[in-house]
Amino acid sequence: MSERLKGNILVTGANRGIGLALVQQLGETPGEEGHIYACCRDPQGPGAQALRDLSTQCPGKITVVKLDVSDVDSISSAVQTVSRIIGAGGLNLLINNAAINRPETPAPLSACGKTDMMEAYETNVVGPFLLVKMLLPLLQKAAAMDDTVKGNTMSCSRSAIVNISTLISSIEKCPETFPIAQMYPYRTSKAALNMLTRCLAEDFRRHNILVAAVHPGWVRTAMGGEEASLTPQESVGGVLSILTSLSNKHSGMLLDWQGNTIPW
Amino acid sequence: MSERLKGNILVTGANRGIGLALVQQLGETPGEEGHIYACCRDPQGPGAQALRDLSTQCPGKITVVKLDVSDVDSISSAVQTVSRIIGAGGLNLLINNAAINRPETPAPLSACGKTDMMEAYETNVVGPFLLVKMLLPLLQKAAAMDDTVKGNTMSCSRSAIVNISTLISSIEKCPETFPIAQMYPYRTSKAALNMLTRCLAEDFRRHNILVAAVHPGWVRTAMGGEEASLTPQESVGGVLSILTSLSNKHSGMLLDWQGNTIPW
Repeated sequence: MSERLKGNILVTGANRGIGLALVQQLGETPGEEGHIYACCRDPQGPGAQALRDLSTQCPGKITVVKLDVSDVDSISSAVQTVSRIIGAGGLNLLINNAAINRPETPAPLSACGKTDMMEAYETNVVGPFLLVKMLLPLLQKAAAMDDTVKGNTMSCSRSAIVNISTLISSIEKCPETFPIAQMYPYRTSKAALNMLTRCLAEDFRRHNILVAAVHPGWVRTAMGGEEASLTPQESVGGVLSILTSLSNKHSGMLLDWQGNTIPW
Repeated sequence: MSERLKGNILVTGANRGIGLALVQQLGETPGEEGHIYACCRDPQGPGAQALRDLSTQCPGKITVVKLDVSDVDSISSAVQTVSRIIGAGGLNLLINNAAINRPETPAPLSACGKTDMMEAYETNVVGPFLLVKMLLPLLQKAAAMDDTVKGNTMSCSRSAIVNISTLISSIEKCPETFPIAQMYPYRTSKAALNMLTRCLAEDFRRHNILVAAVHPGWVRTAMGGEEASLTPQESVGGVLSILTSLSNKHSGMLLDWQGNTIPW
């Protein structure tokens, strides 16, 4: 369970839905071993009230950071802020959770235009891509610092990148899932995010940084809708449990919140 | 072989490499049964001389059309041009071949920025996406017109979309191919193109429009480099042979130029 994830953790899209539930459950972890950097676009706005409350309830555990992953300058500024305060341990875990899904589901071909396609890619793929590039020195630092592990053993407590993906990112499973949710911009962007995950896993093995993609299930959030089968708490409980179990053999894989492998 | 592909065919990126070889071999097809719409960004420029020569050598078979797939207005204008002259038969085959690969191979993470990522997606994914949307009425017309086939039998001579993909679009094969060519922007865009292919195949089955992705092999072109194993002619000979053999069961698949299935 989540009590075994330790170290410094950065979560994007942390003001609601799965991101907020991640920060909440990570914040409940006992001990002073780590810190959570909870990033969202507008930390002062009404949409971040729940995150601000959470930060107050867990004194010294959560720092709320302003971050819009569709904006290079915002990413750069957030990374500078985190770098300044994170300390010698570096960053142990980056969870790329922020994502957009527009237009509204089912988003058939006729409803989707160029802007929908480009913006989904910008936020869901290029945002994580740039964040990883800029946070790489902090992830490398964590991978090198952890003296509880030996050699090339990778884990989410040592140094890892977890991209929140989705079942409908699976090209293989498209014939099953397409009739329910066409979502052209979201699907194409998430398939690209899976490719990014796999490339980074290959690239960063030499740094002992684990990279995986996780499908959190169909969750009752603003994106998942009210008919979804899981609460954010249930989903995140499963996700965090899976994250604690990841090791070398999982790097470059797409897993669901119960640990099942999803085909590309 | 290519003599069996017939009807009206539109090829993007037709002024060089695989696109030019496609137009050349399609132009050699005997008979007056069809027409080739050879699209490129600058039909009057020096980079299109070979295409203009080919058009002259095959009188009445090839129309060169100005098209920049990264520009919505250009796509719209090209589709209007083709619609005006194509006649009652509609469009039988769209080959989305135009693509960019920047920065130069191997394009490691450190060399790739936001612009590289966004531009690759715009040209390699959103271009085909918009072209398909705008050409759909012509593809539907062709699917409905062909009285040589019955019911829901699909083929590239009836109505089809073929997206030129690549072996390195395969997320599954990434561990094998990544060390040779990292190419973050190209890889992520082509994985997204595969998802688009599969979505369109599901979506358009009801219209009897076949959709497939094809890996043309490693070809000696400006993109493939001089060390590649195939000439454009060899590759295209294989690709056209495969296209003539496609039927319902191939819609939504990624095949190589020899007809082998590539995993997603």
